[in-house]
Amino acid sequence: MLKIEDLHYTYEDGTPALNGIDLEIAQGEFLAMLGSNGSGKTTLIKHLNGLLRPTLGRVLLDGKPIERVEDREVFSRIGIVFQDPNDQLFASTVEEDVAFGPTNMGLPPEEIKERVHRALHQVNMQDYGRKSIHALSHGQKKRICVAGILAMEPQVIILDEPTAGLDPMGVHSLMHLLEDLNKKQGITMIMATHVVDLVPLFMSKIAILSKGKVLRYGPPSEVFGDPEAIERAKLNLPLVAELMNLLKTRDHLKLHHIPLTVGEARREILRLLSVQDVTSRV
Amino acid sequence: MLKIEDLHYTYEDGTPALNGIDLEIAQGEFLAMLGSNGSGKTTLIKHLNGLLRPTLGRVLLDGKPIERVEDREVFSRIGIVFQDPNDQLFASTVEEDVAFGPTNMGLPPEEIKERVHRALHQVNMQDYGRKSIHALSHGQKKRICVAGILAMEPQVIILDEPTAGLDPMGVHSLMHLLEDLNKKQGITMIMATHVVDLVPLFMSKIAILSKGKVLRYGPPSEVFGDPEAIERAKLNLPLVAELMNLLKTRDHLKLHHIPLTVGEARREILRLLSVQDVTSRV
Repeated sequence: MLKIEDLHYTYEDGTPALNGIDLEIAQGEFLAMLGSNGSGKTTLIKHLNGLLRPTLGRVLLDGKPIERVEDREVFSRIGIVFQDPNDQLFASTVEEDVAFGPTNMGLPPEEIKERVHRALHQVNMQDYGRKSIHALSHGQKKRICVAGILAMEPQVIILDEPTAGLDPMGVHSLMHLLEDLNKKQGITMIMATHVVDLVPLFMSKIAILSKGKVLRYGPPSEVFGDPEAIERAKLNLPLVAELMNLLKTRDHLKLHHIPLTVGEARREILRLLSVQDVTSRV
Repeated sequence: MLKIEDLHYTYEDGTPALNGIDLEIAQGEFLAMLGSNGSGKTTLIKHLNGLLRPTLGRVLLDGKPIERVEDREVFSRIGIVFQDPNDQLFASTVEEDVAFGPTNMGLPPEEIKERVHRALHQVNMQDYGRKSIHALSHGQKKRICVAGILAMEPQVIILDEPTAGLDPMGVHSLMHLLEDLNKKQGITMIMATHVVDLVPLFMSKIAILSKGKVLRYGPPSEVFGDPEAIERAKLNLPLVAELMNLLKTRDHLKLHHIPLTVGEARREILRLLSVQDVTSRV
């Protein structure tokens, strides 16, 4: 669906931000983009819908260089939810804001109305259509940003740190919404995040960016199974993986793999206890 | 140092935000204030330096009702670092911004200069004094907010979600700075946060707010030892505690306590394995 080939980007002041990114994102994937600040995540995201043009290399959308696809088509197929909802929302009411995308796509009024209605339902904000944007909480604003993107019925949604500033319930409900959109509607998801503990629960692939390059790419079990790479990228392992990795490398417990989630760790600890039980009895 | 007695606050539109808060914060404490959005955290913080006046009840600073302490004294003794640095920083250069507090305190120019110098050193931003605020990253802005507060040499620092939007290294360095200020300089810290995993590593006490009341108060081991209260407040246990709590309650492993950190869990798992080893051998 999206193919990034040897992408380089240098800012006008000479700062190199991307130094040769190669990445292929298949349809239906839920990709976590990890990397410390300054690793190039946001610059890369801005190339994925043509907001920035590469200094070198290219981005292909279904095999076609993205700069040769009409802007309007790119924006309607690839939606970006930025980190700060205040940068994204600008109409005075919720309905007006969500209607902005489909209106710009030149859809007929009836279709726009229906899409706004449906998008607000999807993010569970159907009762807020007439509300003023200013009256919303941070978490509600995030949901409206997602609704505004959904109303364009995109094939790809890219989110930059969507859980920042949300409370635990807010994180939970946003992540399950994204999971539903990904699994039930097949929307490809790309999420830049610092919350590594969410990754093994929701994402199918990880790309670790470091100094404008892809340092590692693969499923969570593989990428988080390489603690040195994580450290090199100045990131953390998920907490559960950190615990289990210490038990394996420092305490020499015989783990089959490094569990990444609470559920996996629980099974592995119970297995260790029962194996030992059996071994000692023999 | 700070005593909150039966504090009530109702917003002008009739929304009750605080419904009888009682809390005593001793000097040198590092208090985590936990609670879902809407639980009253921010409203409470605004009472602690007199930004809001209680509808009922009172806040005592060293035994004296805070509204009877001069504003200038309150602001210099109790510093607040708000969530969004852009709400807090407004001068054009770093030095000017950090100098704002001590200037307002009416200190002589030499003293101001020295304090700015020292505060920038403390947050490790000594090379940025002449820089424009706009040129800073989010994490650097946070550090300048803290420096601006430090330059007033406060006895208490209150921080609202200081780690939001920081990458893992940024979180690490900010938390160790706060720990140093707390342990070495005895500054009382109050930090509102959603990142429960940080709490057992850095904080000495927790207050859980729910619906404008203090639902639980005590050291992390005690408060996180009550998973039902955590759930009632719509919060999460630290991930390690969640894992160990499941092993205890669902799998009936004999844990002495619920470990809260990776280090504690590691010791407890090794103990379980060795105890079993010994038991089976007998």
